[in-house]
Amino acid sequence: MPGNSFGNIFRITTFGESHGPAVGAVIDGVPAGLPLDKEDIQFELSFRRPGRFLVSGRREKDEPEILSGIFNGKTTGAPIAILVRNNDVISSLYEEIKYKPRPGHADLPYIMRYGYENWDYRGGGRSSARETVGRVAASAIAKKLLMFTNTIIAGHLKSLGNIELDTEVKFDDILCSKYSPVRASNKDIENKFIELVKKATTEGDSYGGIAEIFVENPPPGLGEPVFDKIKADLAKAIMSIPAAVGFEYGLGFKLAKMRGSEANDEIIIKNGKLGWKNNTSGGILGGITNGEPIILRCAFKPTSSIRIPQETIDLRTMNESKISVLGRHDPAVAIRGVSVVEAMTSLVLVDHAIRSGVIPSVKIDNKEAEIIQERWLRYKEACKPLEESQ
Amino acid sequence: MPGNSFGNIFRITTFGESHGPAVGAVIDGVPAGLPLDKEDIQFELSFRRPGRFLVSGRREKDEPEILSGIFNGKTTGAPIAILVRNNDVISSLYEEIKYKPRPGHADLPYIMRYGYENWDYRGGGRSSARETVGRVAASAIAKKLLMFTNTIIAGHLKSLGNIELDTEVKFDDILCSKYSPVRASNKDIENKFIELVKKATTEGDSYGGIAEIFVENPPPGLGEPVFDKIKADLAKAIMSIPAAVGFEYGLGFKLAKMRGSEANDEIIIKNGKLGWKNNTSGGILGGITNGEPIILRCAFKPTSSIRIPQETIDLRTMNESKISVLGRHDPAVAIRGVSVVEAMTSLVLVDHAIRSGVIPSVKIDNKEAEIIQERWLRYKEACKPLEESQ
Amino acid sequence: MPGNSFGNIFRITTFGESHGPAVGAVIDGVPAGLPLDKEDIQFELSFRRPGRFLVSGRREKDEPEILSGIFNGKTTGAPIAILVRNNDVISSLYEEIKYKPRPGHADLPYIMRYGYENWDYRGGGRSSARETVGRVAASAIAKKLLMFTNTIIAGHLKSLGNIELDTEVKFDDILCSKYSPVRASNKDIENKFIELVKKATTEGDSYGGIAEIFVENPPPGLGEPVFDKIKADLAKAIMSIPAAVGFEYGLGFKLAKMRGSEANDEIIIKNGKLGWKNNTSGGILGGITNGEPIILRCAFKPTSSIRIPQETIDLRTMNESKISVLGRHDPAVAIRGVSVVEAMTSLVLVDHAIRSGVIPSVKIDNKEAEIIQERWLRYKEACKPLEESQ
Amino acid sequence: MPGNSFGNIFRITTFGESHGPAVGAVIDGVPAGLPLDKEDIQFELSFRRPGRFLVSGRREKDEPEILSGIFNGKTTGAPIAILVRNNDVISSLYEEIKYKPRPGHADLPYIMRYGYENWDYRGGGRSSARETVGRVAASAIAKKLLMFTNTIIAGHLKSLGNIELDTEVKFDDILCSKYSPVRASNKDIENKFIELVKKATTEGDSYGGIAEIFVENPPPGLGEPVFDKIKADLAKAIMSIPAAVGFEYGLGFKLAKMRGSEANDEIIIKNGKLGWKNNTSGGILGGITNGEPIILRCAFKPTSSIRIPQETIDLRTMNESKISVLGRHDPAVAIRGVSVVEAMTSLVLVDHAIRSGVIPSVKIDNKEAEIIQERWLRYKEACKPLEESQ
Repeated sequence: MPGNSFGNIFRITTFGESHGPAVGAVIDGVPAGLPLDKEDIQFELSFRRPGRFLVSGRREKDEPEILSGIFNGKTTGAPIAILVRNNDVISSLYEEIKYKPRPGHADLPYIMRYGYENWDYRGGGRSSARETVGRVAASAIAKKLLMFTNTIIAGHLKSLGNIELDTEVKFDDILCSKYSPVRASNKDIENKFIELVKKATTEGDSYGGIAEIFVENPPPGLGEPVFDKIKADLAKAIMSIPAAVGFEYGLGFKLAKMRGSEANDEIIIKNGKLGWKNNTSGGILGGITNGEPIILRCAFKPTSSIRIPQETIDLRTMNESKISVLGRHDPAVAIRGVSVVEAMTSLVLVDHAIRSGVIPSVKIDNKEAEIIQERWLRYKEACKPLEESQ
Repeated sequence: MPGNSFGNIFRITTFGESHGPAVGAVIDGVPAGLPLDKEDIQFELSFRRPGRFLVSGRREKDEPEILSGIFNGKTTGAPIAILVRNNDVISSLYEEIKYKPRPGHADLPYIMRYGYENWDYRGGGRSSARETVGRVAASAIAKKLLMFTNTIIAGHLKSLGNIELDTEVKFDDILCSKYSPVRASNKDIENKFIELVKKATTEGDSYGGIAEIFVENPPPGLGEPVFDKIKADLAKAIMSIPAAVGFEYGLGFKLAKMRGSEANDEIIIKNGKLGWKNNTSGGILGGITNGEPIILRCAFKPTSSIRIPQETIDLRTMNESKISVLGRHDPAVAIRGVSVVEAMTSLVLVDHAIRSGVIPSVKIDNKEAEIIQERWLRYKEACKPLEESQ
Repeated sequence: MPGNSFGNIFRITTFGESHGPAVGAVIDGVPAGLPLDKEDIQFELSFRRPGRFLVSGRREKDEPEILSGIFNGKTTGAPIAILVRNNDVISSLYEEIKYKPRPGHADLPYIMRYGYENWDYRGGGRSSARETVGRVAASAIAKKLLMFTNTIIAGHLKSLGNIELDTEVKFDDILCSKYSPVRASNKDIENKFIELVKKATTEGDSYGGIAEIFVENPPPGLGEPVFDKIKADLAKAIMSIPAAVGFEYGLGFKLAKMRGSEANDEIIIKNGKLGWKNNTSGGILGGITNGEPIILRCAFKPTSSIRIPQETIDLRTMNESKISVLGRHDPAVAIRGVSVVEAMTSLVLVDHAIRSGVIPSVKIDNKEAEIIQERWLRYKEACKPLEESQ
Repeated sequence: MPGNSFGNIFRITTFGESHGPAVGAVIDGVPAGLPLDKEDIQFELSFRRPGRFLVSGRREKDEPEILSGIFNGKTTGAPIAILVRNNDVISSLYEEIKYKPRPGHADLPYIMRYGYENWDYRGGGRSSARETVGRVAASAIAKKLLMFTNTIIAGHLKSLGNIELDTEVKFDDILCSKYSPVRASNKDIENKFIELVKKATTEGDSYGGIAEIFVENPPPGLGEPVFDKIKADLAKAIMSIPAAVGFEYGLGFKLAKMRGSEANDEIIIKNGKLGWKNNTSGGILGGITNGEPIILRCAFKPTSSIRIPQETIDLRTMNESKISVLGRHDPAVAIRGVSVVEAMTSLVLVDHAIRSGVIPSVKIDNKEAEIIQERWLRYKEACKPLEESQ
């Protein structure tokens, strides 16, 4: 299998380079009968879009064109091809890196793998974060389809550099972080994050951060022993994101320092059903969803492109050299990364829900379609700007 | 795809339950011409075997039978089926959990997914760590095949509970940890780990821990953008292990707290070739191996089976109840987990090496076979007991 | 993907060589709750077994051992490993072919692909028809699971050499052909086939033949546009059988000589439902099942192993030579091939039925299990020896 | 796996409906360094294009746009997305079939599968032969890449209705059939085919036919036992084509009537190398290529869309009705089918060549690229109009 497809039944294939004509995705395995239009795609795309306050200066309208798979406002079961043209491209900024591979970047590994003469250095080519447009576009369909089981996914920025949100968060606030320029889930932390981002910009530096995702109402019983455990597929999905360097779910790495008698989540009756006391395992046990909310985190390294000069080698002379990466870059990829982690989570869940027969693989009937549409609208409404005093 | 296969070209399918007649694996996609015999499999299996000091009391000889794919001491290109019979099984210990799902275990999720009446509760059935026998058996072939590129994988226990090895480790010592009953890479930390394990055993409790893997001489250029990045496939592989709750590579979660100017690994000339200064990214950049040693870690939660009584629900009455898990269990699955993390790492690397044409997909010639055999013997010799004073 | 697995969700992996210790299969993706025991497997295996009258003299009991995936008489959702030991093996008969590749055989292509020194020449190794034991064993599970939709598959030998059955056949008689030593669906044609087989045996020659399969009650709507059409997946499945050289469905190659106005199957009301007048397209339109019986045919070449001496090259000298293939071989592989074509058809249908959600992917409830068991017994009863005067 | 992708390593995903905005394909797994431009794609597309003499009246320019994966005239290893806009669409012709499913068409099966309300009836939607544009576009890349091993694929129309070419054909003439409006490989048979096509057009009827493919210089040793035999993958590929109803290779169905002593292809020394006397098995033995030319055939049924009125059911009333299919249709899909069978053959071969390491999976060096380009130009030149007197 070549590497540009993801998923088993709900399967996306992305294409496109940062400075090529377009990026996009083909989404196959979408059941017929799902209400879908361009605005649904646009809605999710708008939250990863560069050009918003405080992130990359590149200004892309990111208007998706749907090329196939929709008829009379509903999916037909045929693959859905989505195209987003690249418009705001300034390749000249990249002439220097043609000879000076950037520290922390995929430049040199791409050269090692594909050969120097086949390396599309413009804007990072295929390794650019712009590639994630296809993922997020596809995730709009995944998220909408997950309304079938009333499953909702929301993410926020848990920490940025050394600033970490340590209070508990409400799911509704996490939804609202979509409108925060730093994906913060409350105004206090938003202010702190913004300050740090400004500092980074001023200093020509960048920060790492941690994205955290919550999933409400995940269907229980998802995950296929023994290799396609839901935790394994989530890990792969999320670690495939540019700049992702760590993954954990539930208490994650903290569990490695704990004792079984503290860590084990005891089984209780909750709302008249079997449930778990503390959800220490983040909704996943034995690699299978247990019905508790899924909680997971992804560590992002700091943006590799920084203005501060760094050592590299000039490939023409093989001499030591310095590079100061100009271009227009996010001071913290983790911010925009939240959207992408959400997206990858949705792709895994919808794929497993179909594999397990929880969401139909072939068609959705009219009644179900109406319920999905209703829930989708409620979800969009629930995503609204954070209020000042919460 | 059902969930019991792993890998794209070098592909394993495991089968078997803890208390069924046997466990095993079919390994497909092994090129013809690789020297292989039962002892090669046995060698790797011996390091995950229960019955060794301080881990699970279950005493399995774990003698593999090779059923196919070998002729005259070499692989033929046909699938290799390996069978390990289950001998030392005491199912009676599991009668209680038939009605009392264990906290932290897959019991209840399996029931949710497959139905109560289809649940093989004996020893955890398919969710038992015994399933990993097939993985480790397969990894012997993967590790041997990786000798083609002189790539060697070694793992040790980085931390157990709150005890963490904070000195630098040498690759040779990590290899020697194979013979340590707690997978320690030096005698000092071994003693501390042993003490903690004894404490856990006495108290009927268990501890979490972190396994760390180093890969020497990984071929550069492995990893397929954009979803089958090497970091993504490693994450999936490792998070598919029972009790794995977190994954990171390079500096991992620490990077989330750092600034780009600290975190970025500068490019230098090293031994006359392009290289990286600090290997902060653990041998992987842009999801592609860069030739530096691969470094990764897996967080294991504490063994869920503990003697200390815990709350659960009796499924017959749906009343609150207590369970004290008897059976014979490791006080820290992380110890034995090291072997399995090594195994999964080897499966990913060999699969990608074949996908990228670095290791031949169809056949290995006699000359190459000899070199492989030589390196394999050297590797086995390098794995020797830790010395007292190091 | 290596080549020893078949199917997407219901997926089998076979292993084993003709003269190795065993052959077998791992079947993954079987939902939990299907009643299954050794006798179910044995039933289907008995109809492909060598040692029966008129086919290969090799006498294998073909007793399957189930190693995993069953608990209390039902499947658990875990992979089912089935093992059949090779007992009646006389490798000495194959010493000659070690140097003289047999015309019409896989010997030379295997040598070309895997290297001479890695070639398991004993009994054809992996290329032996014995490999199909794993397929037929797996098909017992597939066929039983298809009872969920009351779908029944039956095959017979349509022609042998120039002798062709040209009368219409009843589905019940096709089922009965299982007990015919030449897979004939009536006594008249049986006698003619037997005579031809005897002639071939006497002359040391062999004959080709055509297997024909009928599927009753196939679920409508199976098949995934545009590459995984049901006709495409059936073609692959069946053309993967040793000695298969042609595939067609419905009127097949005859359609190439027809006009649209003759060939098109008109749409009518049948039993109160939409249906087709003549089933010229053998139950498949647009690559999707339409609910009419599926009809397909597979052309088998004559057994390549014949006693009549044939030209080959002696690999030691590279000189012209002759080979007379001794061993114990079927005078017409098409006879035993019928079982295997049935088997491959069942694997495709059950896989697509699960993919399309017509058969559940995860579990079957008790009620459904009972109905399946009932239908299975009725099916086994319907397979009975042909009567003399029909 | 959803059904719109094909191939394991060289993998295409097609999208688009007959009357939607566009059709196209994403091709993944193309090694870096292959010289490629729009004209290469256009060249192959031009031979399947409707609007040419005697085939469908629909006039599409079929101009491909390459959206990704190319940089400086060479592939980069990234997926190549190709888009072809639909321009000449007259959906009004299809209003009638909205209620009257066409005999021989996918209309009713699509309705059964996806639901009436999700059925894109315009021009057959996804089931239209227009879908094959993506396949043929992708095949240009496959064919060019096969120049690495100097492997050339050519097809012609072997028979149309009852008219069959029974003389031997030269490979060069088959190449030239590309320019024949009826894919004939000599002028005599061309005239006969044309006459028949005209007759069909006049009568409002259609004819079936047989496409035959020859592959020169196939790499020996391709094909993966036991399920991914080259014959199995070719069968699937070709039977996935709309209107394909039968597949055979070598002597195919004729072998079923033969004796082993006639059918077996004896092994000889040919040009100083091991070879086969008669190539009765069409270049494939044991499911593996043996180096002899591959020969295969695909039976196409007559075009289902005919003007002659046929019985159907009016879905509004469920009463019997008649339909005369207007639209603009080929009088014999087999003619245009030749291009598509060629295309599918090329996709299988290139995929297996990469899987077997015969063509590199990651990159092609400059020297190899030059040789490929040279051979490609020679191939294009060899495809020229048939001469009058041959």
